[in-house]
Amino acid sequence: MKSIAQVENKSYHSGIPKTAKGTAAMKKFINDVDSLLDESLLGFAKAHADIIQLQTQPTFVHRKDPTAPGKVVLISGGGSGHEPLHTGFVGAGMLDAACPGQIFTSPTPDQMLAAAQAVENGGGVLFIVKNYAGDVMNFEIAAEMLDCPNVSVLVDDDVSLPKAHSTGRRGVAGTTIIEKIVGAAAESGASLEDCKTLGDRVNAATASMGVALSSCTVPALGKPTFELGEQEMEMGVGIHGEHGRETLPLASATEIVAHLAGAIDEDLKPEKGQRALLHVNGFGATPLLELHLIYDLAAQHWEKRGIDICRSLVGNYTTSLDMAGCSLTLTLLDDQLLRHWDAPVNTAALRWGC
Amino acid sequence: MKSIAQVENKSYHSGIPKTAKGTAAMKKFINDVDSLLDESLLGFAKAHADIIQLQTQPTFVHRKDPTAPGKVVLISGGGSGHEPLHTGFVGAGMLDAACPGQIFTSPTPDQMLAAAQAVENGGGVLFIVKNYAGDVMNFEIAAEMLDCPNVSVLVDDDVSLPKAHSTGRRGVAGTTIIEKIVGAAAESGASLEDCKTLGDRVNAATASMGVALSSCTVPALGKPTFELGEQEMEMGVGIHGEHGRETLPLASATEIVAHLAGAIDEDLKPEKGQRALLHVNGFGATPLLELHLIYDLAAQHWEKRGIDICRSLVGNYTTSLDMAGCSLTLTLLDDQLLRHWDAPVNTAALRWGC
Repeated sequence: MKSIAQVENKSYHSGIPKTAKGTAAMKKFINDVDSLLDESLLGFAKAHADIIQLQTQPTFVHRKDPTAPGKVVLISGGGSGHEPLHTGFVGAGMLDAACPGQIFTSPTPDQMLAAAQAVENGGGVLFIVKNYAGDVMNFEIAAEMLDCPNVSVLVDDDVSLPKAHSTGRRGVAGTTIIEKIVGAAAESGASLEDCKTLGDRVNAATASMGVALSSCTVPALGKPTFELGEQEMEMGVGIHGEHGRETLPLASATEIVAHLAGAIDEDLKPEKGQRALLHVNGFGATPLLELHLIYDLAAQHWEKRGIDICRSLVGNYTTSLDMAGCSLTLTLLDDQLLRHWDAPVNTAALRWGC
Repeated sequence: MKSIAQVENKSYHSGIPKTAKGTAAMKKFINDVDSLLDESLLGFAKAHADIIQLQTQPTFVHRKDPTAPGKVVLISGGGSGHEPLHTGFVGAGMLDAACPGQIFTSPTPDQMLAAAQAVENGGGVLFIVKNYAGDVMNFEIAAEMLDCPNVSVLVDDDVSLPKAHSTGRRGVAGTTIIEKIVGAAAESGASLEDCKTLGDRVNAATASMGVALSSCTVPALGKPTFELGEQEMEMGVGIHGEHGRETLPLASATEIVAHLAGAIDEDLKPEKGQRALLHVNGFGATPLLELHLIYDLAAQHWEKRGIDICRSLVGNYTTSLDMAGCSLTLTLLDDQLLRHWDAPVNTAALRWGC
């Protein structure tokens, strides 16, 4: 492992941005498509040096403060390009470490292993894994190599695909909610087994669905991942720009919310009088002005059905680079989940009570 | 004034989004271009009901908790489309109220007057005004109509225009820094005169410059505000998509940062050993991945010159709807400014220590 200080002097390409061979220059702030992630992580580490530290070779981000003896440590990770997920959620009350892969590419087992070894302090390791084949495989390899108690929570909150889909459902914006709630439980001294049970329970109580108004452009490809007509939207899109349920004609915000919320209702079947957290997540290029409008419509949808929307989260938390679009996430709450949601958190992207 | 509960039942258009006459449907989450702002504010008020309240007729947002007797109240406002600025900065430790105008349009004097009358409690009113002709004129009218002690701080941190420009410099992303620091001073019991002096001092110690990689699209117009070639960027752009210093060929992130930081240095003339806060502000559609890369390069720029970058703020705070781009803001700090920056704040968009 090298600390941040050792890699700072690496000289990066300057001049015209170096993009993928044979592609036009992209409209992005980059020097070299190959060093984009490393340079960005250096900036992240500098900007949040009060909370986190960056390690390289292999790359992971961990809390600045050491783990209290016996505390369960939470480790997540996944492809980059979804910031602030997961690195922005490392800190007191949430993750202990996060492993960023290359853009939209799973991190490798050595990253997860090094992160676990760096932060584990006798309480065991809980891996929080979004349900993508590469992530699942690599976290499994790391888990097998790790010589301390460890368990995994698989996140598959995306209701746009049927549960019977060959690889199961995708993990999307509900990940933030799971990491926050289980993070608070771990902080309060919950055991590894209890954290695992809680994580599975929050995942089961959480459903999400998204819609894209534009594609994202992966820097290494240099062109949009998919094409959408001037009057089209991609309903049920994944956070890597995967095709969703269907490409539909652009509709009013009210109709879009009815479609997303309807799919969530069909899966989660919330009942009158239940409390819920409503998370409107932006994919990166959609203004807060629009996200708050969506929040109003979605809150109306559930309030009309007698659901008590008692907590909210609106903003860009699980992004897809520069994709325009948003997702709705509903998490049904009980006293325990509510208490852990409200507990103090001190990370780059979520901060309250600290 | 109507409270939020009274306007909630207003029925908004649904079906195909209603856009400006004669324009194609935009790729935005809207129902009706005429009700976009009202619907968005309802969502904002619902999502942050623990912190703020929305009033309508005229429209303003104020803290949920009443003003402590004798506390100076801070009121800002401006055209919408820059969210979270200013509504997202209402709360303990920052603004007492904010007046959102229509998109990229100044709020009206009756909004400012009603906001002031609602929150003033014997300590007087400090208006924080970005230097745009409409904002300046309307805040002046409100100030004249208000029958309590009041003063204004004019924000003009954008170094892309010369100070001798006919209408002076524009107020841009430095506004966040000024509202945070003066907000903390007001909370700590500073007098109206002291808040005014401090605000002017922070403004003088703050310089910003931005660059756009794409235009924004104002909903009422339905088309991009300006055109940029595939390989062009707009250097020194304003936060409404105003043309900047010059349209330049797209360059590497290192070169872009050198250009922005160089212009700031020329104006602010930071000296070796000085402490500073570095704010990398996204205009709305630029991913955090790129903003953190820009932060790294900008921090390197000033560290090489002996400036101690001891505080950071990276993210979308003063946006221009869906514009891709960013700005750098440098604020030179002393003990007083640093203490007020670090003081607790509890708003929708900035929250720590609470």
